[in-house]
Amino acid sequence: MTTIIRPDGQTGVEQASDTGSVSGGAGGQYEPNMVLATGQYAVVGTRPIRHDGVDKVTGRAIYGADVKLPGMLHGKVLRSPHAHARIRRLDVGRALAHPGVKAVVTAADIPEAEDKHVDLGEGGGDLKFMQENILAREKALYKGHAVAAVAALDGHTAEEALKLIDVDYEVLPAVIDVREAMRKGAPLVHEDLTTESLGKPTDERSNVAKHFQWVLGDPAQGFAGADVVVEREFTTTMVHQGYIEPHNATAVWNADGYITIWCSTQGAFTVREQTAKILQVPVSRLKVVPTEIGGGFGGKINVYLEPVAVLLARKAGRPVKLVMTRAEVFQGTGPAPGAWMRVKLGATRDGRLVAAEAELAMEAGAYPGSNVGEGARCIFACYDIPNGRIDGYDVVVNRPKTAPYRAPGAPQAAFAAEQVVDEICQELGIDPLDFRIKNSAKEGTRNFDGRVNPRIGSIEVLQAAKAHPHYAAPLEGPNRGRGIAHGYWFNIGLESSVNISVNPDGTVNLVEGSTDIGGTRASVAMQAAEVLGLTAHDVKPSVVDTDSVGFTGVTGGSRTTFATGLAAIRAAEDVVRQMKARAARVWEVEPESVGFEKGVFTTSANPEARMTFQELAAQLSDTGGMIAGTASVDPDSAGGAFATNIVDVEVDPDTGKVTILRYTAVQDAGKAIHPSYVEGQMQGGTAQGIGWALNEEYFMNERGELANASLLDYRMPTALDLPMLDTVIVEVPNPGHPFGVRGVGEVPIVEPPAAVANAINRATGRRMTRLPMSPAAILEALGKI
Amino acid sequence: MTTIIRPDGQTGVEQASDTGSVSGGAGGQYEPNMVLATGQYAVVGTRPIRHDGVDKVTGRAIYGADVKLPGMLHGKVLRSPHAHARIRRLDVGRALAHPGVKAVVTAADIPEAEDKHVDLGEGGGDLKFMQENILAREKALYKGHAVAAVAALDGHTAEEALKLIDVDYEVLPAVIDVREAMRKGAPLVHEDLTTESLGKPTDERSNVAKHFQWVLGDPAQGFAGADVVVEREFTTTMVHQGYIEPHNATAVWNADGYITIWCSTQGAFTVREQTAKILQVPVSRLKVVPTEIGGGFGGKINVYLEPVAVLLARKAGRPVKLVMTRAEVFQGTGPAPGAWMRVKLGATRDGRLVAAEAELAMEAGAYPGSNVGEGARCIFACYDIPNGRIDGYDVVVNRPKTAPYRAPGAPQAAFAAEQVVDEICQELGIDPLDFRIKNSAKEGTRNFDGRVNPRIGSIEVLQAAKAHPHYAAPLEGPNRGRGIAHGYWFNIGLESSVNISVNPDGTVNLVEGSTDIGGTRASVAMQAAEVLGLTAHDVKPSVVDTDSVGFTGVTGGSRTTFATGLAAIRAAEDVVRQMKARAARVWEVEPESVGFEKGVFTTSANPEARMTFQELAAQLSDTGGMIAGTASVDPDSAGGAFATNIVDVEVDPDTGKVTILRYTAVQDAGKAIHPSYVEGQMQGGTAQGIGWALNEEYFMNERGELANASLLDYRMPTALDLPMLDTVIVEVPNPGHPFGVRGVGEVPIVEPPAAVANAINRATGRRMTRLPMSPAAILEALGKI
Repeated sequence: MTTIIRPDGQTGVEQASDTGSVSGGAGGQYEPNMVLATGQYAVVGTRPIRHDGVDKVTGRAIYGADVKLPGMLHGKVLRSPHAHARIRRLDVGRALAHPGVKAVVTAADIPEAEDKHVDLGEGGGDLKFMQENILAREKALYKGHAVAAVAALDGHTAEEALKLIDVDYEVLPAVIDVREAMRKGAPLVHEDLTTESLGKPTDERSNVAKHFQWVLGDPAQGFAGADVVVEREFTTTMVHQGYIEPHNATAVWNADGYITIWCSTQGAFTVREQTAKILQVPVSRLKVVPTEIGGGFGGKINVYLEPVAVLLARKAGRPVKLVMTRAEVFQGTGPAPGAWMRVKLGATRDGRLVAAEAELAMEAGAYPGSNVGEGARCIFACYDIPNGRIDGYDVVVNRPKTAPYRAPGAPQAAFAAEQVVDEICQELGIDPLDFRIKNSAKEGTRNFDGRVNPRIGSIEVLQAAKAHPHYAAPLEGPNRGRGIAHGYWFNIGLESSVNISVNPDGTVNLVEGSTDIGGTRASVAMQAAEVLGLTAHDVKPSVVDTDSVGFTGVTGGSRTTFATGLAAIRAAEDVVRQMKARAARVWEVEPESVGFEKGVFTTSANPEARMTFQELAAQLSDTGGMIAGTASVDPDSAGGAFATNIVDVEVDPDTGKVTILRYTAVQDAGKAIHPSYVEGQMQGGTAQGIGWALNEEYFMNERGELANASLLDYRMPTALDLPMLDTVIVEVPNPGHPFGVRGVGEVPIVEPPAAVANAINRATGRRMTRLPMSPAAILEALGKI
Repeated sequence: MTTIIRPDGQTGVEQASDTGSVSGGAGGQYEPNMVLATGQYAVVGTRPIRHDGVDKVTGRAIYGADVKLPGMLHGKVLRSPHAHARIRRLDVGRALAHPGVKAVVTAADIPEAEDKHVDLGEGGGDLKFMQENILAREKALYKGHAVAAVAALDGHTAEEALKLIDVDYEVLPAVIDVREAMRKGAPLVHEDLTTESLGKPTDERSNVAKHFQWVLGDPAQGFAGADVVVEREFTTTMVHQGYIEPHNATAVWNADGYITIWCSTQGAFTVREQTAKILQVPVSRLKVVPTEIGGGFGGKINVYLEPVAVLLARKAGRPVKLVMTRAEVFQGTGPAPGAWMRVKLGATRDGRLVAAEAELAMEAGAYPGSNVGEGARCIFACYDIPNGRIDGYDVVVNRPKTAPYRAPGAPQAAFAAEQVVDEICQELGIDPLDFRIKNSAKEGTRNFDGRVNPRIGSIEVLQAAKAHPHYAAPLEGPNRGRGIAHGYWFNIGLESSVNISVNPDGTVNLVEGSTDIGGTRASVAMQAAEVLGLTAHDVKPSVVDTDSVGFTGVTGGSRTTFATGLAAIRAAEDVVRQMKARAARVWEVEPESVGFEKGVFTTSANPEARMTFQELAAQLSDTGGMIAGTASVDPDSAGGAFATNIVDVEVDPDTGKVTILRYTAVQDAGKAIHPSYVEGQMQGGTAQGIGWALNEEYFMNERGELANASLLDYRMPTALDLPMLDTVIVEVPNPGHPFGVRGVGEVPIVEPPAAVANAINRATGRRMTRLPMSPAAILEALGKI
């Protein structure tokens, strides 16, 4: 069942058809000089079949592993068996002598970067570190760290040839826990890494790459004025995004120095930029062709195999394909960091938050750069708190270099903060939703990082949760409990480009650079369709390579429907502008007299004159040529998103198993362009969050070896583990987008760990401070083991 | 050796480097508000290596036959063994029963067109006829006419399965000669075809599809005032374009009704349009991906295999690839028409042409639509003749449906007209170049079709030929002769679209829809580079599919460097405009104050401020996002082109063999963007024209069976047959293009048959009125057989 709630109090009633309109709606932020004058949309808010749907369900869609080129070789990567080891000697001679082997590469093939500290943009980091993560140079810093790679006539030969590479490792003590790593005297992951503290470099050699602090108001005075103070420590473990498709890359290095890469990626331009910088070639030498992608969730932004495939292809003079195994995905890519957190909140007896304090330490993995900054940005962002301090620590450990994972840093932060809020409510005897509504962030609230909120939907989401039947429904029986949690993700903006060209049959082709993970071909095309007065399927979207469209940032940060959608709107407006001028030429009237509404051109100069988009499209070729529009945009942010979860659980006191009985996710989408895909994001994020809550963890032994590097042992929730996840879409328009769109993809993962923990607390009376809340952890909390 | 001559009398001196500039040059038609203020070009006129060069010489380029898709089937076409036959029964049952066969299609699979007479645009024709040419319906109209097609697991199985198709033919008398076909009582190719005469339909059933007549002044009075009148009849035979790569098509018909076609074509959008209309599906359902193309010359505009591959793919539910054999290319595609022509010219004693008359009858092949109209348009266009009449006849015969072939219709017309001009010169005792200069068409001359010439370079080309050392060089020895001929081709304009996006390293990507046959990636990129102040290789061109760029017409009509180049200039200007605005924002000055010259931005508001294109490009991402520009253009014509050829031959009186001793081609290129590729077009066209002159012909027996359907028996000139073909580029700027570009690809084929005939006349005293002037024809003319 779909519920869409709008701030005018009207609940949306959907029509089923492709082109049906949603009644009500205050999403009409569309500027007056634009095509639509009202908040009534013809396409936006409907649920057409996605353009890539049939391709994907019939198996026709081409993913990275499907790429085949004439003369293509197959590559394999040799990875360190040790979590921390000096590479004393690396001899590839025997492998090269194998008749089936055409090339072997090591770190020696990667050119030394002139400027070692280069900003690699989205998902990037320090260039020297990124180069070393691609192929280890002096030390292997985690089990699974790439050391060398082979290209051979087939995959089996390549696999065999890995065994012919001789590596002499000096095994070093490994540090795999974030708190251990912070201790004085801990083994140093990098001997020469010095801490950056409070914005300044220091001489201190440590595993703490960075310490930052944000202060708001007067924290000491704030706590002094509190009637209730709760303080707790929390830990979470490293978890993986668990996308179903392993990483892959196929590369050709042409004789003229031009390079082509096919890969599954969230951002073809990011692959281009990172690979170019790692290999020290100009970006214009590289063409990245994004294939379809089987999930990313932030983990397919950074490059791993791409530069290796390129180097092998150059040496071999032939195309080379690399595809990871699942074990390689777990051990050699970028999971989300485990964290240690301390949260302290103070409130007055009347239920007003007056002070907050947090320490967050997150695992960066083998190289600096966790998402602790994002976690800090989110941890108290749901609330209007006048005083407080946040300390963040970015800590290197002998684990894979972490990467973004859906609202990176925020699920950990919410797991900590939302449980302390819950405990405060318990102490004060205040309903947890009422408390959150009372203390909610709103337009004008200043955040700890200094940003001031624009129009946001936090209170509306909380109120919708409060009004939901789930919250009032009785929950009977022993060992059951209901938890709620509230969460925030800021969403990003970034650059997107779209070209739209008109076909003589009145349809249009839309070219975009955003790879489509969750239905964005549809959500972007629908926005163009709305402006052009067409149906969603009259707009034919294509995701093209980096040579064929203007610069476009990653599909990530919940930005695509927002920013690429905005580019589609602007490009469509460019088309409308040109078509108005053409209509004026056909009618021999002034261009200014021509209007366009709901797919029909008219002119104030002649009340009889009338042409549909299709009629004019058919005439373009004979009246001055077909028309193409373009737009490049670079908006600030996709609008902050808030969500509230309500969850009922039952805890088996004998086994420790937690069963999710009922789950309701309420979220502000700004404007749901395609409600099904918004719901899909909400359900998918919630399911992943439940995985964080109950099962998922990098289970490492003391030597830093991952013991569960397979999908059998790394336990993600399946459809059998979960009930139907109910969704409620709230629509508080984002003033930064003509239709009011906000990013929707990330915030749904933020709440579940906290919401489930709060529910377990109600069911058991125990406060769970460690993720995952697995049966063993529950039994331990219950004192049973 | 390169000679470039400009109308200011200065001969160009080239520099060798990629970015060297050509001195002199009056090509500066660039408007004053544009980027370049002078006629000095930095890139235009230089000879950089083509962007696709390494790919092509290393074998990396992907042609149509290289396309491989998962699960792909291989198709073969069953063709009529008879030139004219009724299909009494067509039974595909046995073929379908073969276990390796996955689909069989016949004409019954092509939907009947609702509107049978639809304009299919460039290269198109009557829809019903085009459908029937794809797969014969009631009658097979030529030997090689497609009757059915099979898709099987491999090509051998498909070939075998063709033998299992049972066709019961009633063989009908065939008519294969254009004059025979025009006779009353000739077998009718189409029983229901009625003649369109002088613009009006008639009831007359005939093989003459159309008769048109153009009259200028008073022909009778004109001839009455002539002192010398020469009249002759000429015939030419059907010849093939002889592109090295056979036709091919690979298609997928997706379950959602979307179709993708990969093929080698001169125009992806034309394939889209024709296939969509033939199969009666909307164009937006079709995506055409143009592969590299191994020659076209007009013969790869119309579709042959594409709709068949699509139908097979739908039936089989799998991708299907079809590739023609050479015999199929000869018998089943579109050669140039054979012609019968009568030309009569009258001149005064002082060497002034006063009247002209021509009849042209051309073979349309099995369906109406030869290029007789184009032939008529060109036949007298070199001259300023006050009185005259042209009658044109489009005649169907039992031969393959003809198609454009490089300046279609013009080589035949010139073969006739230029010999009569030559004879007039002989009668009057006037130098043939002086005579042509005196009578040359010029700006303001009215043509027989009513068009009035803009600025053209006819006289300049003739003068350059007169001044060339070749013309003055002694030619001694028996059986030798020197001939000259002058020729015209009008060139077309049509629609082109280009997108340009800026890369952060200061290079740009250029997206175009024009397939690259003769180096147009380079010639288009160079024009953008000139505007942007970049080198040719800073512009990275991509030829993309029909979903990914705005509508673009065929690579044909010598339009691509002109029209797509114009789109590239306009798109580059769009980029410059946006970058000026960005520079203004960076400098905080008014956008109007920003200038751009030779790759450097400056502002009148601050004499110190200065940024190169590269410097600003690197800042775009942080100052509002990357920039993309776009343009769609639809110019009228690529500017008329004229060429003069001088040829020395030696005729062996014993064998009849004609040896080309020396050849000089002089041509107006308007402005040679990349002189090497202009020279290549001149040399290639001349070589093909020499093939027409001396060897090439469809040698058919009386049953209409082609006796020489292989490249061994169909004798095209090889490098061993020809001397170095010298070229002289004249540059009389086309006022319709900022750099003065004219189309250059077609006019070089127009002159050779006439020039060689005139040379043979000087060597032998015989007037050759039939093509080819093969050894047998020469011996016959010499009375030796």
